[in-house]
Amino acid sequence: MVRLLNQIKEPNDIKRISPKLYPVLAEEIRDFLLNNVSQTGGHLASNLGAVEITMALHICLRFPEDKVVYDVGHQSYVHKILTGRKDEFSTLRQKDGLCGFPKRSESECDVFGTGHSSTSISAALGLAVARDLEQKDNTVVAVIGDGALSGGMAYEALNNLSILRKEKKNMIIILNDNKMSISENVGGMSRYLNDLRSRKSYSEFKENVESALNNIPGVGKSVARTLKKSKDSIKQLFIPGMLFENMGITYYGLVNGHDIYELIHAINRAKQHEGPVLIHAITRKGMGYKNAEKNPEKFHGIGPFDRESGELLAKKTKKTYTDVFADSLVALAKNNKKIVAITAAMPSGTGLKSFKKYYPKRFFDVGIAEEHAVTFAAGLAAQGMHPVFAVYSSFLQRGYDQVLHDVCIQKLPVFFCIDRSGLVGADGETHQGIFDISYLGHIPNMVLMAPKNGREMPEMMKFALEYNGPIAMKYPRGSVYEGLSEYNAPVELGKSEVIHEGQDVVILSVGSIMEECEKAVQHLQEKGYNPGLVNVRFIRPMDEDLLRELAAKYPLIVTVEENELIGGYGQMVSAFLHKNKYHNDLLSLGISDYFVRHATVAQQREQAGIDADSIVKSIIDRMN
Amino acid sequence: MVRLLNQIKEPNDIKRISPKLYPVLAEEIRDFLLNNVSQTGGHLASNLGAVEITMALHICLRFPEDKVVYDVGHQSYVHKILTGRKDEFSTLRQKDGLCGFPKRSESECDVFGTGHSSTSISAALGLAVARDLEQKDNTVVAVIGDGALSGGMAYEALNNLSILRKEKKNMIIILNDNKMSISENVGGMSRYLNDLRSRKSYSEFKENVESALNNIPGVGKSVARTLKKSKDSIKQLFIPGMLFENMGITYYGLVNGHDIYELIHAINRAKQHEGPVLIHAITRKGMGYKNAEKNPEKFHGIGPFDRESGELLAKKTKKTYTDVFADSLVALAKNNKKIVAITAAMPSGTGLKSFKKYYPKRFFDVGIAEEHAVTFAAGLAAQGMHPVFAVYSSFLQRGYDQVLHDVCIQKLPVFFCIDRSGLVGADGETHQGIFDISYLGHIPNMVLMAPKNGREMPEMMKFALEYNGPIAMKYPRGSVYEGLSEYNAPVELGKSEVIHEGQDVVILSVGSIMEECEKAVQHLQEKGYNPGLVNVRFIRPMDEDLLRELAAKYPLIVTVEENELIGGYGQMVSAFLHKNKYHNDLLSLGISDYFVRHATVAQQREQAGIDADSIVKSIIDRMN
Repeated sequence: MVRLLNQIKEPNDIKRISPKLYPVLAEEIRDFLLNNVSQTGGHLASNLGAVEITMALHICLRFPEDKVVYDVGHQSYVHKILTGRKDEFSTLRQKDGLCGFPKRSESECDVFGTGHSSTSISAALGLAVARDLEQKDNTVVAVIGDGALSGGMAYEALNNLSILRKEKKNMIIILNDNKMSISENVGGMSRYLNDLRSRKSYSEFKENVESALNNIPGVGKSVARTLKKSKDSIKQLFIPGMLFENMGITYYGLVNGHDIYELIHAINRAKQHEGPVLIHAITRKGMGYKNAEKNPEKFHGIGPFDRESGELLAKKTKKTYTDVFADSLVALAKNNKKIVAITAAMPSGTGLKSFKKYYPKRFFDVGIAEEHAVTFAAGLAAQGMHPVFAVYSSFLQRGYDQVLHDVCIQKLPVFFCIDRSGLVGADGETHQGIFDISYLGHIPNMVLMAPKNGREMPEMMKFALEYNGPIAMKYPRGSVYEGLSEYNAPVELGKSEVIHEGQDVVILSVGSIMEECEKAVQHLQEKGYNPGLVNVRFIRPMDEDLLRELAAKYPLIVTVEENELIGGYGQMVSAFLHKNKYHNDLLSLGISDYFVRHATVAQQREQAGIDADSIVKSIIDRMN
Repeated sequence: MVRLLNQIKEPNDIKRISPKLYPVLAEEIRDFLLNNVSQTGGHLASNLGAVEITMALHICLRFPEDKVVYDVGHQSYVHKILTGRKDEFSTLRQKDGLCGFPKRSESECDVFGTGHSSTSISAALGLAVARDLEQKDNTVVAVIGDGALSGGMAYEALNNLSILRKEKKNMIIILNDNKMSISENVGGMSRYLNDLRSRKSYSEFKENVESALNNIPGVGKSVARTLKKSKDSIKQLFIPGMLFENMGITYYGLVNGHDIYELIHAINRAKQHEGPVLIHAITRKGMGYKNAEKNPEKFHGIGPFDRESGELLAKKTKKTYTDVFADSLVALAKNNKKIVAITAAMPSGTGLKSFKKYYPKRFFDVGIAEEHAVTFAAGLAAQGMHPVFAVYSSFLQRGYDQVLHDVCIQKLPVFFCIDRSGLVGADGETHQGIFDISYLGHIPNMVLMAPKNGREMPEMMKFALEYNGPIAMKYPRGSVYEGLSEYNAPVELGKSEVIHEGQDVVILSVGSIMEECEKAVQHLQEKGYNPGLVNVRFIRPMDEDLLRELAAKYPLIVTVEENELIGGYGQMVSAFLHKNKYHNDLLSLGISDYFVRHATVAQQREQAGIDADSIVKSIIDRMN
């Protein structure tokens, strides 16, 4: 069922397909997506929802001359298919294979890489202004979901679009409105879009206006009185998209985002407009695949699955760190009414869904708005609550200033639960959680912890929720490490846990990389070495007493972390040794100054030299 | 002229003043502000503009029970005056004196510290939600300027206010609209507010509606046609504040922000509302002081000045780093059409005003929107431009994620010119530029430079604008260092500059702290030591070749930087030495894990131990 699709080998080939066959092509694309993603895993529901929008763009525009920026980027599969990358889909998200996000290095047609939310309008505005300065006339489009529109920088960019309006220069925003981001959408903007959606089309809206006016009993003051009384309905009645129009952006809506002809018409019309235009397209996440339509959240990012039943092929058997976090927080919140939980549009991903179920009044989904989330938490803490912000490591990057400025300067008790910390595998460069030690470790007043295994996690959480200041716990994606469960020293501020005493060398392991370190210790023992092993627990404050002991005892100290080496734990130990005039040998292992591309976590660890075998090899090299 | 003001010794004392004397009190407060700020320096224009708003809040609310968050916070002087801190104003912004921003540690009435823009609504929402969870009934207010409203996180927070609306819980936002942030305001939101402003009052607006409807020739289809034709005027005519109302926030406007009685009425009315309310108050920056009204930008943050003439007491004689940057960029842009310049609402502060004058088409003021600014720059760079983003160090913190995700992953040639890097003096904790090495130094692909003096700066800029990748140059507030102008080795990627050869010890100086280091070298020489001195220039990539030479030659290596030690340059050197098995002694000087409070830069350097005398003392201590 790839008769038409096989004719598309290069960018712009789609233009040779007969318009009446567009719906057939759309069906073939969906079939192709399902066949491939069910085998490789990846983002499915968002791509199924963006088939017609992407097709329409490729029909109306010319690539690579015209430019499209896909917000977040996980909905760019169809764009990849239509720009000559179809045959690489079996390698999707695998080492050296196709990236799951747009990537400048992958194709000339990927003009701007994305991954984090809400960047597309800013980037597209840059592309448009550069075009105008160079007096070119290509079309620039940003495709953004309604969820991403809750992110502040999207608004900053909308606000800045006035420069195009002033110069009468075109730029198109396609609002891909599926009524949800990854999870259900929240907030005033969402409510507003909902109001717009309730009017089925522009023409229907016009009829509404007419009939409403027909119903007004007279003219003059009586009309005004009536208008005033029915303010709420009237104001929703006039000019849809007013919120955008108020900011100087022309609004085209509503467009059926699965009607290819309607989309083509809207895009062609928008291209002619002198100024920025927003096309409001209504789509359905998971469109065309019943299982995904029913459960778009499950099929947002998914592993290999059975196409017929929609069941995952690899059944989940072990608990993840996210599970342990979720269960522990529910338990801890039972007797502590001060605990409130915050997510930035990730109730499922962070595990807070269960907290929401038990404590709906104490649960807050703020939308894709990490900056606001952090300062909102600070406000709650300033008034005596104990907020827990559960967030992915790479997304908390967006709240760096707020962590420093609103939480840490004021030393407020906000507990950051940093999920997907460390290497994350297939999502690649934009989603790696390998910078959190570097971007949090230097902030005064911050306490930063990492548990060695699933068992230690609840103990750290208990500690954190009794601690009266900013504190963060980082933990990785995936199943908990179950080893070393017999090591249960109580969690104390700034205290590490000694696992094994040794003699030649001591390994300081940060968080869940313990799994590799413990294996490395065993291998070293087998080879006749006598290594010590320490569970760092507190990255900051450092356990200076223990470091002094270790420096006095071991000629070689080794630090291992799933973090960039610069600004990482190893550097802190290095500085400690120099400051205190210790002359031990120090070997710091971690990611050494590069962005980590998509691959499996195991491959990424190997590349970084922090899998057990590499650790052993580096240590033996260093000792000789 | 402080008869009434002297009766205000504690929070809530204002309530004892007779209402008919409010205008007199306002005048006394303005007089007090002028008297004090003309002597101490500080933020003037914004405080003169916020006199009545702050008075009205103190008349309508009770402190500290009720909570007010002042966005940005430099307009909180009147709040400080009215909460018992009047007598400390002679110590404003001085060491151990009154802070120029709200500060929790300073008063119970400062419920939430601010400094960076656009945080107030987020924080206030946190305070309001905490109130509701604890079933209290205090009032919560955010006071935010129209400029701060261009910041994305303000929008994220507005978006999230829907949770209050759902629960019918109150929160008040006072939009202090003076038509400018620090500089002139820009963007779609500003245009929108301007439209609102053009209607003088609510009642006048209602008349407009009536007369507009009276002018409609009939009812039915003809009305609709008329409406459609006059869409632009009609849509601006109906319901002012629709943009806010669309998001579920009740809009009260327009209020004269200098009419105390009107403000009191609006606040009392807003307190009763079940849900979030925005009061749109029109004010004038610098109100009541002619010099400031005429030139609010000059009187935004100002040094001591003559009250009569408005002239600064300390005449500026030397060029600042900002001046050199501004002049050099104008010169470089002449023959390089690819250069475009971006500011986030700081054309004066960053010196880009002159660039704007010469190249208006290549100049972009994006509003207080650092996140958008960075990604907008990335978009420009992706299309072949060479954008220069001039920004204060502490404000670029807000663009951390975008620097990493949009610029560095894609290795795009954006040039970050980081002003106010290092210690900044009187502004205090929120404005110190002491984290930029820590938050940029660990990002792969980033190049980070710092010039030793004013003469080196244009050379670095020339280098940066020929470099095809992300690059940043950091430089401090204040006058250029004019020493060592005879040292002019060409700027080469990753190469340091040796100033003096020595024997016992070598000092590696980062950027403008060279002034102190050079003095330290002289003192050390006088004491019979033989110190070497290196101008680091490139923080990253490090000059590894030189470091090897130094390690082979000098038993003691000293690094000095105006940055937090964790994640700073010293740590990078420390890690380098350990990695390469050098056993030299290393002394790293910088700010050691604390937020730096307001004082003079000299005092702050002394506290950190990076003034010349402290450097000398530390080195001698270390050598013995």
